[in-house]
Amino acid sequence: MSAQRAELIAVGSELLEPWRTDTNGSYLTRVLGERGIAVRFRTVVGDTSEDLQEAFRVALGRSDLIVATGGLGPTIDDLTREAVAGLLGLPLLPDEAIARRIEERFRRLGREMPPQNRRQAMVPRGAEALPNRLGTAPGLWMTSGGVRIVLLPGVPEEMRQMTEASVLPRLGASGERFAHRIIKIAGLAESEVDRRLDDVARRAAPVAWTILAGPGQVEIHLRERVREGEPPEGIERIDGEIAAVLGAHVAARDEETIEEVAGRLLAGLGATLATAESLTGGGIAERLTRTPGASRYFRGGVVAYGDEAKGAVLGVAAETLRARGAVSRETALEMAHGARRLFTSTWALAATGYAGPVGGGPGRPPGRVILGLVGPGVESARDVNLPGSRRAVRVRSCRLALDMLRRALLDAETSL
Amino acid sequence: MSAQRAELIAVGSELLEPWRTDTNGSYLTRVLGERGIAVRFRTVVGDTSEDLQEAFRVALGRSDLIVATGGLGPTIDDLTREAVAGLLGLPLLPDEAIARRIEERFRRLGREMPPQNRRQAMVPRGAEALPNRLGTAPGLWMTSGGVRIVLLPGVPEEMRQMTEASVLPRLGASGERFAHRIIKIAGLAESEVDRRLDDVARRAAPVAWTILAGPGQVEIHLRERVREGEPPEGIERIDGEIAAVLGAHVAARDEETIEEVAGRLLAGLGATLATAESLTGGGIAERLTRTPGASRYFRGGVVAYGDEAKGAVLGVAAETLRARGAVSRETALEMAHGARRLFTSTWALAATGYAGPVGGGPGRPPGRVILGLVGPGVESARDVNLPGSRRAVRVRSCRLALDMLRRALLDAETSL
Repeated sequence: MSAQRAELIAVGSELLEPWRTDTNGSYLTRVLGERGIAVRFRTVVGDTSEDLQEAFRVALGRSDLIVATGGLGPTIDDLTREAVAGLLGLPLLPDEAIARRIEERFRRLGREMPPQNRRQAMVPRGAEALPNRLGTAPGLWMTSGGVRIVLLPGVPEEMRQMTEASVLPRLGASGERFAHRIIKIAGLAESEVDRRLDDVARRAAPVAWTILAGPGQVEIHLRERVREGEPPEGIERIDGEIAAVLGAHVAARDEETIEEVAGRLLAGLGATLATAESLTGGGIAERLTRTPGASRYFRGGVVAYGDEAKGAVLGVAAETLRARGAVSRETALEMAHGARRLFTSTWALAATGYAGPVGGGPGRPPGRVILGLVGPGVESARDVNLPGSRRAVRVRSCRLALDMLRRALLDAETSL
Repeated sequence: MSAQRAELIAVGSELLEPWRTDTNGSYLTRVLGERGIAVRFRTVVGDTSEDLQEAFRVALGRSDLIVATGGLGPTIDDLTREAVAGLLGLPLLPDEAIARRIEERFRRLGREMPPQNRRQAMVPRGAEALPNRLGTAPGLWMTSGGVRIVLLPGVPEEMRQMTEASVLPRLGASGERFAHRIIKIAGLAESEVDRRLDDVARRAAPVAWTILAGPGQVEIHLRERVREGEPPEGIERIDGEIAAVLGAHVAARDEETIEEVAGRLLAGLGATLATAESLTGGGIAERLTRTPGASRYFRGGVVAYGDEAKGAVLGVAAETLRARGAVSRETALEMAHGARRLFTSTWALAATGYAGPVGGGPGRPPGRVILGLVGPGVESARDVNLPGSRRAVRVRSCRLALDMLRRALLDAETSL
């Protein structure tokens, strides 16, 4: 098994601008990973010789494979070729075959080759040029002190085409790949998940285990090196162990979302759903309708942002709002009943609360949220205090509400 | 001007997964840049002590300021604190004040602090703890051999709040900063914006000009290096030139969104709004309610996902649905009138259409969307064919609807 230590270098001052991201690195991480090569470091560096050489010098000291993207173009900003040749002490020699190919390419487009493009035909001594079918800059493949160095253009289509045509074949078939699985857990804090799964995590090796928390959701990412064509046995074993420990807290796997799981359960039961939202402002309905075909089980919803709408549209009693307040279990349940009546659905889900940044006065802090759910034989409310910003409270509320629905539907399915 | 050599380290094995990107780095690059501190290197590294220490060792040798995000959580994966302390040879000492704050935080949420959270109260000797108002992990600020090292949690909201409250004030003034402006343009394709602004862009220097397109919106990003305390004169000049050329197509600036602009106009007019959504599934209402205080002008909305709900809840005539169909100008306007009546609002905005991946049959392709708007003296419908995936069609529809409202409110304001 080749335990290659791979590193990616993304070259380009524009990648250090706040609004840019290095998408090439995501692609390379994926295709290398599929061949069993783990990327250990990803570095972004600007277009200066000094910084470029520093990035390569560091990478040469700690990695077996360096794949760099960007900086092979014809302009004065494009310095990767020169910087790497300089660092390795290799002269740059003109390659007439490449020069002719670039000239030919310009001729086909009816243009003359600008003189600066000749720089793209310079090759460090001993390096192999990798053809670029979609652009002018050839890639370069070289070896230094046992480290393989691949330089590719930064234009994503060119980089991808060359990776597939020239780089991956040269890396050789390892006969291995990385299998991945994401397990999404709802209703438990990260530290609680960690505590309950402590034993499972300790026994996870050789499967790599990462735990990740977002608002209202904890994910466990599993990765396993497996032989080509074989199933990820370690992942399957650990998935089973997690499910045994956490039960219904395991909400979804891989790309699937909680709302997709809830939608699948509704469709399976032949049931329909309506929503009544206050603080989430339509976010629950918006999530439910992301899935194509949601109209099979989602009837619709009301966003009742003010008390007036809660009364006039959803039929929440004025007395309830007066005596119990808009953020109460009674109001949440009346909202749910109102939505269920209005849309003639089997189930209805309601959310009311204070999203923040301010609450509803003394004893009504931001983050106080009440969820209501009604369905066949079900009428339940849940009362929570959520931490975080307005946005985080809204996102958590949506996730909690959808998870409350998912669990109730699981129970309904079991009791059939 | 202090030419600080800054470097960012994003910690987390999940950031080396192909489907994740380091958004924290983009934010930090921007806010450091605004203070004249250029980021030279950005590195992503996984959750292993060896790789973490290697990344910090390299950074200590070439940078004056290191800002790392991630790996400060309570789980066994969270190794940043220990790795950096180990690299610098500093013992980790318990800080009782932090421990009490974390315990207090759990108590407020009605939970007991899990024992592993105590790790978050460990501080390397000589380091300063930076308070975390939104989560449990405090940040850490330390200095080693003249290099300033800042460790922040990876949760974006916590990281941002702490950067603003604790990191930026400690970095001091450099005498210069980068000023930024984002100009958001609605209703024009990227190539059309590019064509109309060609002259303005040519005269932009020394202001850096970047054009960026997303679904239903084009942005122009401007950046200018200015002396502390002085206004960005170049940016102001170019902003004025863009506004002169594009007029009402300039929808918003900087962090402001189209829905915030529309909300501001509604509040200024003392008007209120309701929504009636089909294909957007609540997305328009969800956007409008992201803004704190939206209840001043947003009454509520109906998500009428099926024809039944359009009739029963919004009062769209059965005859209209039969003769014109659910995706028609007539239905869109009846939906808007229904929402306006139901919520007794001044204005109402409706969206109906086929989000995809499939349409509504022959002659009804996915991406066909009709928007309706009613208000004082206003009744208008707009019919568009939008490209892209289901998600893109929904996002574009929300933006177009909100922009239709914004333009109508601008007209209403002008005619006062």
